[in-house]
Amino acid sequence: MDARHFLVLGASLLAMALAGPAGAQEKVQEKVQEEVREMPQPYVRVAEIEIDPSQVEPYGAAVKEQIEAAVRLEPGVLALYAVADAQNPAHVFVFEIYADVDAYKAHIETPHFKAYKAITQDMVKSLKLRDTVPILLGAKRT
Amino acid sequence: MDARHFLVLGASLLAMALAGPAGAQEKVQEKVQEEVREMPQPYVRVAEIEIDPSQVEPYGAAVKEQIEAAVRLEPGVLALYAVADAQNPAHVFVFEIYADVDAYKAHIETPHFKAYKAITQDMVKSLKLRDTVPILLGAKRT
Repeated sequence: MDARHFLVLGASLLAMALAGPAGAQEKVQEKVQEEVREMPQPYVRVAEIEIDPSQVEPYGAAVKEQIEAAVRLEPGVLALYAVADAQNPAHVFVFEIYADVDAYKAHIETPHFKAYKAITQDMVKSLKLRDTVPILLGAKRT
Repeated sequence: MDARHFLVLGASLLAMALAGPAGAQEKVQEKVQEEVREMPQPYVRVAEIEIDPSQVEPYGAAVKEQIEAAVRLEPGVLALYAVADAQNPAHVFVFEIYADVDAYKAHIETPHFKAYKAITQDMVKSLKLRDTVPILLGAKRT
């Protein structure tokens, strides 16, 4: 998965480079390829949320706060991408990438997630949560 | 955006570390924070696709091939995440992150994208393409 991949990659680049510049580029390349092969498949969910149109702004603030806390505090939350339909800002998608199912289960028990649910409960008109199976999670790599 | 962010970050870590280990950690941290602030907002689309249930496998193969080519060959294709609904493998979402609108426009004119469209045209029962506005694209960072 890309976020974790690049984190590992950052650390590897640093370690290889500190070991000395000779041949570092080749070693980095080999290391990257090993890590790409070894990466476990993450757990991905797609949430589709209809917001009360009069509550789009406070909902956005609450979801931002929740995402910032989750990405910062939870090792298993790899990415939370919240976007609004350009034609209808009250129609929100959240594409959620967790290290595994347990990371998701831990996420929904956190204080920041519970606070988000409490704050937004009267802003959300409907909520579809989809458990998914990745076909391919393709992202730029070196 | 995370993919590009981490690419830039990898290069920075390497450069800073080659410059010498003294204080490298702090410099890396400063550099990362600068880059986070400077990152432009990417262009994100959400595609929702209903596949003919008898064509789920060949569709998956075609979408994988298209994604691999796009991520490898197109500098402006930052991520293409294709997932299937766990309850209904014929219901596919593709979360698409481009550097900007022009990168998306270039993408749909590429030979690999046109081949994908031609191969899958009889496999796809319906297609919803949504242009979106990011609320927050949160991903793990160092």
